[in-house]
Amino acid sequence: MDINYRIYKLRELMKNRGIDAYIVPTSDPHQSEYIADYYKTREYISGFTGSAGTVVITKNKSGLWTDSRYFLQAKKELANTEIKLYKMGVSGVENYDEFLKKEVGEFGKIGFDGTCFSLQDYRNLSEKLGSRMLISDIDFIGKIWEKRPKLPKNKVWIYDEKYVGESTLSKIEKIREKMNSNNCDYTFIGSPEDICYILNIRGDDIEYNPVVLSYMLIGNDKIYLCIDQDKLTKEVEDYLKKFNITVSSYDYIFKLIKSIPGKSRIYLDPERTNVKIYNSINSNVRITFGTNFSTNMKSIKNDIEIKNEKIAYIKDAVALVKFFNWVETGVSTGVLTEYIASDKLHDIRKKDKDFIEESFETISAYADNAAIVHYSPSKGNSKTLKNEGLFLVDSGAHYMQGTTDITRTISLGKLTEEEKIDYTLVLKSHIALATAIFKEGTNGQRLDMISKYPLWKAKKDFFHGTGHGVGFTLTVHEGPQRISFNDETIFKKNMTTSNEPGLYIEGKHGIRIENEVYVDICEENEFGKFFKFENLTYVPIDTRPVVKEMLDGWEIKRINEYNKKCFDIISEYLDENDLEYLKKICEEI
Amino acid sequence: MDINYRIYKLRELMKNRGIDAYIVPTSDPHQSEYIADYYKTREYISGFTGSAGTVVITKNKSGLWTDSRYFLQAKKELANTEIKLYKMGVSGVENYDEFLKKEVGEFGKIGFDGTCFSLQDYRNLSEKLGSRMLISDIDFIGKIWEKRPKLPKNKVWIYDEKYVGESTLSKIEKIREKMNSNNCDYTFIGSPEDICYILNIRGDDIEYNPVVLSYMLIGNDKIYLCIDQDKLTKEVEDYLKKFNITVSSYDYIFKLIKSIPGKSRIYLDPERTNVKIYNSINSNVRITFGTNFSTNMKSIKNDIEIKNEKIAYIKDAVALVKFFNWVETGVSTGVLTEYIASDKLHDIRKKDKDFIEESFETISAYADNAAIVHYSPSKGNSKTLKNEGLFLVDSGAHYMQGTTDITRTISLGKLTEEEKIDYTLVLKSHIALATAIFKEGTNGQRLDMISKYPLWKAKKDFFHGTGHGVGFTLTVHEGPQRISFNDETIFKKNMTTSNEPGLYIEGKHGIRIENEVYVDICEENEFGKFFKFENLTYVPIDTRPVVKEMLDGWEIKRINEYNKKCFDIISEYLDENDLEYLKKICEEI
Repeated sequence: MDINYRIYKLRELMKNRGIDAYIVPTSDPHQSEYIADYYKTREYISGFTGSAGTVVITKNKSGLWTDSRYFLQAKKELANTEIKLYKMGVSGVENYDEFLKKEVGEFGKIGFDGTCFSLQDYRNLSEKLGSRMLISDIDFIGKIWEKRPKLPKNKVWIYDEKYVGESTLSKIEKIREKMNSNNCDYTFIGSPEDICYILNIRGDDIEYNPVVLSYMLIGNDKIYLCIDQDKLTKEVEDYLKKFNITVSSYDYIFKLIKSIPGKSRIYLDPERTNVKIYNSINSNVRITFGTNFSTNMKSIKNDIEIKNEKIAYIKDAVALVKFFNWVETGVSTGVLTEYIASDKLHDIRKKDKDFIEESFETISAYADNAAIVHYSPSKGNSKTLKNEGLFLVDSGAHYMQGTTDITRTISLGKLTEEEKIDYTLVLKSHIALATAIFKEGTNGQRLDMISKYPLWKAKKDFFHGTGHGVGFTLTVHEGPQRISFNDETIFKKNMTTSNEPGLYIEGKHGIRIENEVYVDICEENEFGKFFKFENLTYVPIDTRPVVKEMLDGWEIKRINEYNKKCFDIISEYLDENDLEYLKKICEEI
Repeated sequence: MDINYRIYKLRELMKNRGIDAYIVPTSDPHQSEYIADYYKTREYISGFTGSAGTVVITKNKSGLWTDSRYFLQAKKELANTEIKLYKMGVSGVENYDEFLKKEVGEFGKIGFDGTCFSLQDYRNLSEKLGSRMLISDIDFIGKIWEKRPKLPKNKVWIYDEKYVGESTLSKIEKIREKMNSNNCDYTFIGSPEDICYILNIRGDDIEYNPVVLSYMLIGNDKIYLCIDQDKLTKEVEDYLKKFNITVSSYDYIFKLIKSIPGKSRIYLDPERTNVKIYNSINSNVRITFGTNFSTNMKSIKNDIEIKNEKIAYIKDAVALVKFFNWVETGVSTGVLTEYIASDKLHDIRKKDKDFIEESFETISAYADNAAIVHYSPSKGNSKTLKNEGLFLVDSGAHYMQGTTDITRTISLGKLTEEEKIDYTLVLKSHIALATAIFKEGTNGQRLDMISKYPLWKAKKDFFHGTGHGVGFTLTVHEGPQRISFNDETIFKKNMTTSNEPGLYIEGKHGIRIENEVYVDICEENEFGKFFKFENLTYVPIDTRPVVKEMLDGWEIKRINEYNKKCFDIISEYLDENDLEYLKKICEEI
């Protein structure tokens, strides 16, 4: 069934129900960033495989809205469909709500599947669409999708406290304290990574995210977990009983929410509560909105998590050094492709006994492919590496000791002047943030400015966040902290963040240098409390593309010290051949 | 009459009217930053002469709340009074609202003069004080103040368009457009600097601020100006008639506001509207709150204002070079004091035919006095300059061509290592911001981070804003733009700002280096629109205290280029002796 035929079938259903437009977002009932195949409805209806985007179908038009990371990919994947690409963020391009406002009459009907819309998104949309009617209980894709993948059935496992560092009881107690101080009787948790964090369990329901799809309702005495019970072993069942948790089926959540008695108060996160859940709440239940308590709790790592992360990063560093040595050796064969390389990296990582899975799809991007920010090679579509240009690899893994996320861009031989200059600029930007010392109360946008300062001076810029929190064997992008243009989240001790400035020149090259760091106390004195970033990542930064004259003395010192520290940490884990490579790559400039 | 006796008299009045606490803020009916002597009620009741602070008197307690700039001064000035100093911003020190909450019973009465409270401040206070009753029509100080200074009576003058660059008609038209797009029939303007800006007039009612105390109400057809008519010459009266402005007495504003017909809509700025004005509005008039349209308009200078400012800054630079030469020559006499120096600077500046007045009280601070951020010497209390240490001078003037604000810190001879290091850090901070290039949409807190980066790296900090807008022959601190920790105002083309990082070590030294700059377009390319700062100030920066090893190559280059440019611009205006000095001070490092 081709895409246009799928759209035709959808329009038939729309017509029967009198719907003027149908929205297919990229989401699951938990507003996860990555989603299980079962929920890839937007991909089904459009053929577009990117991780973000929204499709809107009207009686005679159809469009996909996606961001700059996916412009090139979407153009390719939509080529043989009737769907028009709307480039989000490009000036003059209308948003899909503006499109809907134009295409759907003032009292027209707009349908979507409410489980795949967060309350927050629904509110924003509803505000923008005025008098148009939003109908949230329509799953048309479910009706036309033959051979839809099954919901996952993988087993849940218990994550030992020696890894996660805090007991479930302690976490629940803290949440109940927060409920108390917010005058709430219940808190609903729709986010699988929060549930896994609280219960110290993990699953395998979403590729790259070892979580289990589930809902949770915490009361003052009782806790309810709605989950496909087939996923629970006897051991896990017994474990959950210890905390007096009532386990019900996954879909029972709607009835459970409906059963919350009137006049009680519930706390919920509008970003992580779907519209169907919200609509199930009795109208006389009082609701307090806010970020999940557990989201803020887990954003601040405990000392055991930090200690474990350091171990995970050493494992990862060893894997990456082996990998880059293998790549540099292999380039001369003339048959090494981005895809083969990415495969090899997986093979190296998975040898570690504590490896769980990759934390996201490896970006293995050579030359101009690296300018496509979220490029991933496929078997059939993959560039061959040559003895020239830059090779960007952004990858990460979940280990029992935590999650990694690292990007290195290495020189494969001859480079253009522009490649060298841009590489050095990105390095300056990376170092600026890495060495920053900042006062208590500093937020993400101030940190972003530090990173952008050297790039903007060169009148260059990149268009993704400079840093994101990283979960602990959960999701690789973990809020609320972010380092970006407008972010206001304050960075606190033991928060983790990536430091990943880049530069991308379409048709030429792409560069990104990414470490993960955590916030530590630097000094408290008469001027206040100062924080610094401590490195988790210790993979040498390639100095071959560096234009030394562009660096200040302290920057050169920093690179040399950093690479020396990498050497000191990793060298003992390498065989002679890899050690030789490490030595070479860590040489002082 | 001593301070404690004044407080005793006040308490008598409080008792008679059944008032439990009385608040005396630092303000006038226009919420001006500087105030006419007539309105210096807080100084009258406390003896404290600083520019900011609030006094609260209860039945048996009294306190002054002021910020870190004035801790030392306030301590001295309150010494022989019963008033306790509350250091604002120091952890553990309660705010005056917390004090009131503790000292005044739940249904107690708190009085103040509503003309000297902005609506915004009133709302904040009212929210914090809960059930306590706020009574806003009590001017107790007016009743006890014998020999109260008179309200000013100085004449208004017309500011030629060749200086201000835009006609009153054009400004009024723009305001009416804004009123229109905000669906308003009226806009009330309580800020004298906005009124002067709109009408292209100036006055002489407040020291350092050539404004005239007045209120204005702009309707769709009519304009009302409430002002002491004795201040208007025939020429000004005729000028105002041209714009169809109805002139009434200063106090008529309350009746005028009362006369606004029901159901009409008025736009007003809660920060610049006093409580008495607000209370005069009929309850069925609809109010829209927001920053005065003219405040945003005047924050963006027109090209003629910028051109004139450049002229003003050359005048000022010439004055300052002459002044510093005179100071350095005079130090060896052993009789030169901070006060004499400050007086001399005034004498030099006022020789210029376009000089109007100083734009604020000159800070002439030697050695440890410079650590008191807003220190000003007096005849009787003034340090003698010696052949060692640092001398900080922060001063400015209103010229016909605009307003200046500049700080230089110069070496008078031998310096300590700490003085040199701190000076170099402040210089690094100043250069970082001066050379910044920033994307469209960048706000004040991001710019603040640029400036703070080198200081925080040294684990040092200062506790005043890094930059403020500067008015055009109005007030030296002009919003809404600010460069500070939490500022969110976006910096736009032709906004001016000071760049004034500092470091202050109590008992040792104080350093500040301040230029005024304006935002200009740097480049627009595929990465976006980039802005830069263009200098207005061209007074050489003293390099004698610099620790060269602490500077990066580009920083050294920048200083040398800057000082060379100062030389090129100023040299032609100096006699041989001053030229010699300039040459020496501009020497390359």
